[in-house]
Amino acid sequence: RSIDLNADLGESFGAWRLGDDLAMLDLVSSANVACGFHAGDPLTLQRTCAAAAERGVVIGAQVGYRDLAGFGRRFIDVAPDELTADVLYQLGALEAMCRVAGTRVAYVKPHGALYNAVVHHEEQARALVAAVVAYDATLPVLGLPGSALLRRAAEAGLRAVSEAFADRGYTGEGTLVPRREPGALLHDPDLVAARTARLVTDGRIRAVDGTWVAVAAESICTHGDSPGAVAIARAVRAALEGAGVRIEPFTGRG
Amino acid sequence: RSIDLNADLGESFGAWRLGDDLAMLDLVSSANVACGFHAGDPLTLQRTCAAAAERGVVIGAQVGYRDLAGFGRRFIDVAPDELTADVLYQLGALEAMCRVAGTRVAYVKPHGALYNAVVHHEEQARALVAAVVAYDATLPVLGLPGSALLRRAAEAGLRAVSEAFADRGYTGEGTLVPRREPGALLHDPDLVAARTARLVTDGRIRAVDGTWVAVAAESICTHGDSPGAVAIARAVRAALEGAGVRIEPFTGRG
Amino acid sequence: RSIDLNADLGESFGAWRLGDDLAMLDLVSSANVACGFHAGDPLTLQRTCAAAAERGVVIGAQVGYRDLAGFGRRFIDVAPDELTADVLYQLGALEAMCRVAGTRVAYVKPHGALYNAVVHHEEQARALVAAVVAYDATLPVLGLPGSALLRRAAEAGLRAVSEAFADRGYTGEGTLVPRREPGALLHDPDLVAARTARLVTDGRIRAVDGTWVAVAAESICTHGDSPGAVAIARAVRAALEGAGVRIEPFTGRG
Amino acid sequence: RSIDLNADLGESFGAWRLGDDLAMLDLVSSANVACGFHAGDPLTLQRTCAAAAERGVVIGAQVGYRDLAGFGRRFIDVAPDELTADVLYQLGALEAMCRVAGTRVAYVKPHGALYNAVVHHEEQARALVAAVVAYDATLPVLGLPGSALLRRAAEAGLRAVSEAFADRGYTGEGTLVPRREPGALLHDPDLVAARTARLVTDGRIRAVDGTWVAVAAESICTHGDSPGAVAIARAVRAALEGAGVRIEPFTGRG
Repeated sequence: RSIDLNADLGESFGAWRLGDDLAMLDLVSSANVACGFHAGDPLTLQRTCAAAAERGVVIGAQVGYRDLAGFGRRFIDVAPDELTADVLYQLGALEAMCRVAGTRVAYVKPHGALYNAVVHHEEQARALVAAVVAYDATLPVLGLPGSALLRRAAEAGLRAVSEAFADRGYTGEGTLVPRREPGALLHDPDLVAARTARLVTDGRIRAVDGTWVAVAAESICTHGDSPGAVAIARAVRAALEGAGVRIEPFTGRG
Repeated sequence: RSIDLNADLGESFGAWRLGDDLAMLDLVSSANVACGFHAGDPLTLQRTCAAAAERGVVIGAQVGYRDLAGFGRRFIDVAPDELTADVLYQLGALEAMCRVAGTRVAYVKPHGALYNAVVHHEEQARALVAAVVAYDATLPVLGLPGSALLRRAAEAGLRAVSEAFADRGYTGEGTLVPRREPGALLHDPDLVAARTARLVTDGRIRAVDGTWVAVAAESICTHGDSPGAVAIARAVRAALEGAGVRIEPFTGRG
Repeated sequence: RSIDLNADLGESFGAWRLGDDLAMLDLVSSANVACGFHAGDPLTLQRTCAAAAERGVVIGAQVGYRDLAGFGRRFIDVAPDELTADVLYQLGALEAMCRVAGTRVAYVKPHGALYNAVVHHEEQARALVAAVVAYDATLPVLGLPGSALLRRAAEAGLRAVSEAFADRGYTGEGTLVPRREPGALLHDPDLVAARTARLVTDGRIRAVDGTWVAVAAESICTHGDSPGAVAIARAVRAALEGAGVRIEPFTGRG
Repeated sequence: RSIDLNADLGESFGAWRLGDDLAMLDLVSSANVACGFHAGDPLTLQRTCAAAAERGVVIGAQVGYRDLAGFGRRFIDVAPDELTADVLYQLGALEAMCRVAGTRVAYVKPHGALYNAVVHHEEQARALVAAVVAYDATLPVLGLPGSALLRRAAEAGLRAVSEAFADRGYTGEGTLVPRREPGALLHDPDLVAARTARLVTDGRIRAVDGTWVAVAAESICTHGDSPGAVAIARAVRAALEGAGVRIEPFTGRG
């Protein structure tokens, strides 16, 4: 039995540092590397891709809205053809960093407000899928189970990969507790780790209402930029390995 | 006998239009397409690459400083490792646009202040060459004859391609008349066309001091964004064809 | 009888020119000058304010979303406190340009997608009003009749100024025909001029369904950046003056 | 006897945090607040100005090159009229934040590469001075003793204020040890504090060659963004107060 662990990395920008990328790269199997539109200056991206490649961590393009000031966390009503072009641009830019590191972009995951938008926003989901299809139809798309993105990706013949969140609360319906509500974010590494191990071995997670809900996921997302990020990722990895689960990229071993 | 004609294209940005890309694409054999750092939003780049590919025009990456407000025309003292990363980022971004258009980036040409800097700035010239070597050592670099860029490109095993300027005045030493001096810019299409034909067929150009100087070039640059750009390019092309010169990309026929 | 004519100006950015600001400044009484977030580099803003001040044209701050790539035409879901700060920043920046030109910012008008958002988006309307109240509660706000913006501005004690559009079609309910529908934009200068004169002298405009609807406005907006902008503004001004209407800023004579 | 303590603040940007502004504001008498071109999103600027005003800390505009990716630390060859406009824009933007905080911009200090450029770059020094003269000729300019900036400021009738650096090494000629050489940066809070107290009470500082050099300064700069910044500033303040020196803004008490 195996599972993928993914995290957002490469999100520093110039003089501003964010997260401990090297520590996270020793813990995850897939790195969602920013592409410069919401975060990630080119030198940061180059170094992050090189460090990931050295460790055999698979690299995905974490594409976002063009919004450094908002860190890609604000919905932008981008026209579909512009969004497709924006995604292509980011994919290619990160591909160059992978290429000089001896590897390649292996999947695509939207970031922040774009991630949330393409759960329901059909036009933007279609525009994102169109970019991946045009660029390389063998690239999987990583997203939320039940999202418009994954549905449209599958319809377009792309591999649609579902993820679960190690440090987020779930409702009794199996959806994420909105960030503004209590129980949305979990901070205790041991608790998060135990939940994640149960989720992976048992396919179920305890919801905020106390019920157990089924959650199917090929990858577990741990957050890379919060203060306790490394501690949580380390605990999750240890708990999974303790439960006999191998940490392997969903794209397959190297 | 043949020669390449190149021009800067894809330099619009969002609502701001610059130049008549489609008209120029019917006249040149090589398009230096902006890469988003000094000009060129992603959708403009995608459309420009598609239009170039349709017409069999070869695409080069016109890399520049990260300076939209200055259109890449202001020297920036970028550290070499940052410049290398910036160039890689731009190369990859444009490559994605070429890829979805069924073609690829075929050469690299620096833009504006970076073009001028790497005539003498050894560190930046080396940083630019390092990016091309790391990305794809088969890519030619297009630049000014006698520049640090072309010397270092050749030393690194890259193909170094010299260009001459159809609409610029030359000194008796074969260098360009600085833009602030009289005779720096030529605006009469017929005069520019006649000079260019002579240059290509005879290898010489009339300098501002009246002497004839030898200028070796594998490509002729015509400016794409000035008011009379299309008229000049059309006259140049007609004069060359009238002199029995074929317009062909320096990278070789498609 | 008098009316104000306003237009969007100062929307060039670096090497990219947009509109004929000097020609428009000879025709309008109020200039909505961009503030750098959706358009307008600082030197353009300084020159535009100086030119407006020389001609006695009143200057308003045309505040927008932080989105050069989208020209401020894409809705961005900015948090209210961020929007308030963004508006303050823009107001102050333009104020400096007015100050060195011997004048001051005399009103505020939102641009593009922000203009459209604050017709209905209560949080953003409130955030914009909060910025104006905090900065200078004597500044009028210029917007669409019936908008959340003008209602909230009035509630906050600001002067709320309604505008009508010279070159837009109106529905039978007195609202603007959406841009994607037929009749949304009028291009014939004579027709636009005649409609405007009727609107100002008679308070009514002919809707797309043939009915006459009442439209109350203290200012007429003419677009500054379309190809025929100057011709339309000139025709509108001539028609108004021909009907005995003086063109005067809504803020009052100088 | 009294001296001013100044530090660079307001240099966070969106999701990226830099420095501990609130801690520093309890220690310094003058805050060089970023203006958005090299750092500082509008909400950060608004909050920093409000926090400074609450504590009676005087606010200066820390103007820089338009270069977020480079944090204003890379020389940019901006044309003088563009630099003047860029400085005006930044001054006005920060003024708005001061205004809503019940205070005003009280001085101007260039940041990073611009600070270093105007030591020798006469055109840029003149352009910066021109902006201050045009905006408000009562504003002092804070800079390096002996710089072109302070000389030109004084010639233009501005108050030119010299600063010394608490945590930088000095040469036997009284200039700063270049950052790449040994002894350029001092990290021990006690050592920095003792040097600063001596400098203020005695007008002399121990140079890297062991000699004592005279340094005249109306303000002491402590760095706000390094890891030990708060500890150094606290030690410097304590040492000064222990030596009977009051910490007061060079602009005078409130």
